[in-house]
Amino acid sequence: MLIRAFVPAHITAFFVPRFNEEPLLAGSLGAGINLSKGTNVFISLEEGLERHIHIAFNGEPVKKEDAVISYSVAYDILPKDFEGELEIWQYFDFPNGHGFGNSAGGALGTALSLGFALKEKTFLQAAQIAHKYEVLHKGGLGDVIAQVHGGIEVRIKPGAPGIGVVDNIFFEGYKVLAVPMGRLSTKEVLDSDVIRLIEKEGEKAINALLSNPKVEVLMKEARAFSERTGLLSGELLEIARELDKALKLPSSMVMLGKSLFALLREEEIEKVKSIMDELSIDDYHICEVYTQRPSVERWVEGER
Amino acid sequence: MLIRAFVPAHITAFFVPRFNEEPLLAGSLGAGINLSKGTNVFISLEEGLERHIHIAFNGEPVKKEDAVISYSVAYDILPKDFEGELEIWQYFDFPNGHGFGNSAGGALGTALSLGFALKEKTFLQAAQIAHKYEVLHKGGLGDVIAQVHGGIEVRIKPGAPGIGVVDNIFFEGYKVLAVPMGRLSTKEVLDSDVIRLIEKEGEKAINALLSNPKVEVLMKEARAFSERTGLLSGELLEIARELDKALKLPSSMVMLGKSLFALLREEEIEKVKSIMDELSIDDYHICEVYTQRPSVERWVEGER
Repeated sequence: MLIRAFVPAHITAFFVPRFNEEPLLAGSLGAGINLSKGTNVFISLEEGLERHIHIAFNGEPVKKEDAVISYSVAYDILPKDFEGELEIWQYFDFPNGHGFGNSAGGALGTALSLGFALKEKTFLQAAQIAHKYEVLHKGGLGDVIAQVHGGIEVRIKPGAPGIGVVDNIFFEGYKVLAVPMGRLSTKEVLDSDVIRLIEKEGEKAINALLSNPKVEVLMKEARAFSERTGLLSGELLEIARELDKALKLPSSMVMLGKSLFALLREEEIEKVKSIMDELSIDDYHICEVYTQRPSVERWVEGER
Repeated sequence: MLIRAFVPAHITAFFVPRFNEEPLLAGSLGAGINLSKGTNVFISLEEGLERHIHIAFNGEPVKKEDAVISYSVAYDILPKDFEGELEIWQYFDFPNGHGFGNSAGGALGTALSLGFALKEKTFLQAAQIAHKYEVLHKGGLGDVIAQVHGGIEVRIKPGAPGIGVVDNIFFEGYKVLAVPMGRLSTKEVLDSDVIRLIEKEGEKAINALLSNPKVEVLMKEARAFSERTGLLSGELLEIARELDKALKLPSSMVMLGKSLFALLREEEIEKVKSIMDELSIDDYHICEVYTQRPSVERWVEGER
């Protein structure tokens, strides 16, 4: 049996972490954007004599310890008495560690695929398992619940799917530019003194957005947050300023990766492409906002 | 400006009403199915000298008092100082009053269209306004939040979107047969003694489904609920029994309408059509489960 799930990449624009010893209550407040590119997960499940779980990233097998979140999700959802082979193939449109929610995408895609294959858990039960291991292994705090909702999202109550609350902002006529430029350790940032600035500026940003829920406010607050916390600086800030010359709304930094994003209007696309050319940046993506729920279905090769 | 929203029809399989003086806390527990047919809402918003709100059902203008829920939603969402013409055109794939969530579909479609047009409220703020007037005017308790989530849904905590919690059941390979046969007054049923049986049987059904979340359990519990409450009886029960002869899963009654529904596998469709023919029933629908969120977009005629 071959099952396929698609989970959108998720960019965080600004956030306030909400730690909790109970992983289902841990999460984040904040806002972000789900993209039409992201993570495709294919699982193949065959009964056999022994339990084996194999995980591959972009076609390359990875060790258990390098895919501990998805491995834990699979182990948790499989029935205790399951014996056989489970292969989990995860394909990422964005590089790992750059702030696009790949680990949550892999975890949620794995959870939903197994939920669909086995039909022994509900959607929220499966999604909560993905959230739990994301939090326990510090993959992220708010990506799973954001990806479950889609769209341009505002996390207004922290927690796992079914516990936290996610709202959406209406928007029209924008595509998303995403420029992955490098890795940033979420753990290092959250363990540093910057955390206090993040909490203060994150709360200001979310209050401003909720009192005037428009994409213009989202991008203005995102940029203010990224500069005031000192996270957007140096070369990345210079590139952001170059992009701004072509855009109506300010560009900003992806939380947390050395990556930039911006909302583009149709007439801004060509100008942005020229700027990327001038800066010799060729790894950039122009996507749609993904406004639907993650998909999961039986996969029949050749049908799509 | 012309905006179009689609909201799925929503069938309730079983339920437990949860009344509350605060309409955002009122709602229902239960389970149901969102359909690929439902309510299309088109709104046209033009500035002018005076505030006018016009509502039409299936192309026919209706009086304010006959569309009080959607009228209240529109009045609430329009800015206090708005002057101009708002036309709300609602088209229903199922007849009104037959249990397919038309009033919630019209209310939510109106709320989301206006939210999209004005971009002054969030998605949840708009959806909560639809829920509020549905509850206040006794259109329904759980349709709006169920329609927001899509799929085969289980309402596990009552309330408006953002307050209540809706889960989903994984399923595969089923279409939905929907047979609208007559009106049933929700108010009369809820005001009668049947309410105690509904609460008792509804709680049993939801617990059974959550302990084994499969469509097979959903349909078995739905049928048990509808018979034990006495709501499914007489001619409707006879037709349900005829349908059962062709189906793997039991058919059941739509809560609350004189209507039947069933989950169909591909190979059961022709047999079901013959039975409908034999019974001289020609108003029936075979739809997909609608697994996405309600859609809302700018409408450009001729583009789709």
